[in-house]
Formats: sequence, C-alpha cells, structure tokens
Amino acid sequence: MSDDKKKPADDGLNTTKILDTARAQIRRHGQAKTNIVDIAKALGTSHTTIYRHFRSKTDVFDAIVVDAMKDEEALAKAFVASSAPASERLLGMVLALHRRKRERLEGDPEVYELYRRVLEARPELVKNYTAAMTRLLAAIIEDGVKRREFVVDDVDLAAGIVRDAVTVYVHPAHVELAFKAGLDLEPSVRRMIETLAIAMRRGLSLGNIPD
Amino acid sequence: MSDDKKKPADDGLNTTKILDTARAQIRRHGQAKTNIVDIAKALGTSHTTIYRHFRSKTDVFDAIVVDAMKDEEALAKAFVASSAPASERLLGMVLALHRRKRERLEGDPEVYELYRRVLEARPELVKNYTAAMTRLLAAIIEDGVKRREFVVDDVDLAAGIVRDAVTVYVHPAHVELAFKAGLDLEPSVRRMIETLAIAMRRGLSLGNIPD
Repeated sequence: MSDDKKKPADDGLNTTKILDTARAQIRRHGQAKTNIVDIAKALGTSHTTIYRHFRSKTDVFDAIVVDAMKDEEALAKAFVASSAPASERLLGMVLALHRRKRERLEGDPEVYELYRRVLEARPELVKNYTAAMTRLLAAIIEDGVKRREFVVDDVDLAAGIVRDAVTVYVHPAHVELAFKAGLDLEPSVRRMIETLAIAMRRGLSLGNIPD
Repeated sequence: MSDDKKKPADDGLNTTKILDTARAQIRRHGQAKTNIVDIAKALGTSHTTIYRHFRSKTDVFDAIVVDAMKDEEALAKAFVASSAPASERLLGMVLALHRRKRERLEGDPEVYELYRRVLEARPELVKNYTAAMTRLLAAIIEDGVKRREFVVDDVDLAAGIVRDAVTVYVHPAHVELAFKAGLDLEPSVRRMIETLAIAMRRGLSLGNIPD
C-alpha cells in the first residue's frame, strides 16, 4: 500500500491505487479525517485527478466496501468449485468468511469500522452482497442434492435458511460484539452447519410451508 | 402515560410512573432532548426527587430497555408453559418475539430507536437477555425430548443453535432493516423452525463436535 506513494504515476492513476491510498489514510487518520485532498496529496496528484475516478469521498468509501465484499465472494466461490461433500463445503465457506471478518477486525480495525458503518447506511450494497452469497450457498446445496447427499425440495429456500442461520457468525456487527466479549464462535459455526446438514440429509421440505 | 401527570403524587413516585413519563418525553422530543429536569417537570416534581430513583438519564434509559426485555421474556415464557408440541411452541415463541419487535418499531419508533442504540452500547444487558432467552428455548427443547418429539444429546447446545439461527429475525437492527426493505420475515421464521425441528426430530448430536 505505502509502495504506491513511492512509485511514479507512470500510466496514470487506477482505482486500485486510489483505494490502497485511501485505506492507508483511513488507517492513519481515521475515516472522519480522510478526505479527497489528502488522498490526492499522498498520491502526489491533485484532487481534480481523483475526482475523475470518484465523485466524492462517499464514493471512495463505498468502493472500499465493495472491494471487501468482492474479496469475500472470491473466498466463498472456492468452496463452490471444490469436490468435497456439500456439508463440508458449507462449513468451510462459513468458517472462511467468519475468519476473514475476524482477521480484518483484528488486523485492520479502522477499515473494518468503515465497512461496518457503510453497511448500516447502505442497504442496497448489503442486498447485492447477500444475493451473491445466497447464490453460492444454493450452488453447493444443489450439488449436494445431485450427489444424493441432501434431499431438499427447494434449493433456493434452503439456501436462504442457511444464509439466515449463519448471519450471526459473519455479520460485521455480530463478529465485532463476539470479539469484544472474547467469544469463540467457531464451535457454534460447526454445530450450526451440522444441524442444518442433518435436516438436509434427512429430507428438507420447505416449499409447502405457508407464507 | 399522560394520565400520570394529572394524578396527584399520592404515594410518591414509583419507577413505573417515571419510566412512563420518560417514554412519553422521548416520543415527543426524542431521546437526545429528553432529560431528568423535563421528566421531573412533567411529573410535577423536582429533579432531586427523580435522582432518588435514578442516578442519571443513562440509568433511566437503561431501565426503559430492561423493561422492554422483561416484557419480551414474559411473552416468551408463555410458550414454555404451554402443552403444545415443542416445535409449535418454538415457532410460536419466535414469531411472537418477532411480531412484538415489529409492533414496537412501527408503533413506538422513538423508544425502539432508544432500545436499538442502548443495546449496541451495553453488551452486558444483551448478555443477560440472551442468557434468559436461551434458558427458555432450552426448557422447550428439554420438554420436547421428554415427550420423545425430539432426540437431542445436549439440550443447552441445541438451544444455543436455535437462538443463533433465529437472531436475524428478532435482533432489533435486523428487524428494522427488514422493515425498511419491505420484507416479510415470517415465512422465513416458519422455514427456519421447520428446518431446526427436522434435525431435532431425526436426532441432533452436538456434544461430540470438536470445539
């Protein structure tokens, strides 16, 4: 990250450079004191140059959050591609997302705080992220059904239930609360996935439950 | 609530009167503009009298939140006492808590907002509430095991899993997000309890899952 500042702006600025610098500024000065002018200074350029890439500080912050979400999606996708039993992949995915959140909270608290705050204020970002994650869960469950590991009548409804059940282990506010309370949530993640997997192995009918 | 102000302070002030008046002030002026002096004025007494009951505005606000938590515990307890099948009682309890939260959010938004904010700042209040609710869930699951409706090796662990799985339907921040997004969570509550009940009916072994 700090390397960017030493490099000459050879082929101009790209989004990655700007976001890396913005993150470095947030770590050093906090999100409230981070602004476009300081990001520009740290990059050895003018604020007008930054405004060619982002309309506002809010846009920069949103992009940092979307970046983190994309990182989590890529992490989760690896478990869809695997050939392990579906229940192991569900566990692996949720544990990986939980750990990534904890690592970011412990190793990069200022940027994590930004992430948590932006999510509270931007439900549409959360909606897109949630939809993407639910599709990945559905892909694993679908595969479990194909392998005859699971018997599930409605894969999308089942994915929604798994997503809701594990929200408390991956939602940034809950992860932060658990961390501050010194709680290790990993045993609970294991027990939750085991519980959901038992239901899916034994036959999960959700399509006929009245709305 | 406003009745209190008309009544003479015959047998002096009690906590209920002070909290009712504080809630009325919060509804009218918001939590930021509510203070001990105004609560005292509305009760036709002096702030020193209020300070005999509460040390600070924060104490009054905490007491309002604890009041709401006790109301929810009483609501939940009714399902422990019932003789219906355990899965129906779990569903009834979670739906009742979810609906109570929504009613308060829609009908009493200023006090709900106070509740949500205090919970974020006071993890020890949340801890006590969560422990009480988990005991009620455990009592229902225990009863389900006695009736041979459920086969569960560790009732307390199972209660923790049920609690975690439904947090997203009863946590004030999540209920508010769903409400703002126009989402009806009740079908999800039904599907979640059905999923958990299938696992508990078919045999839920959690005691041997490694920590």
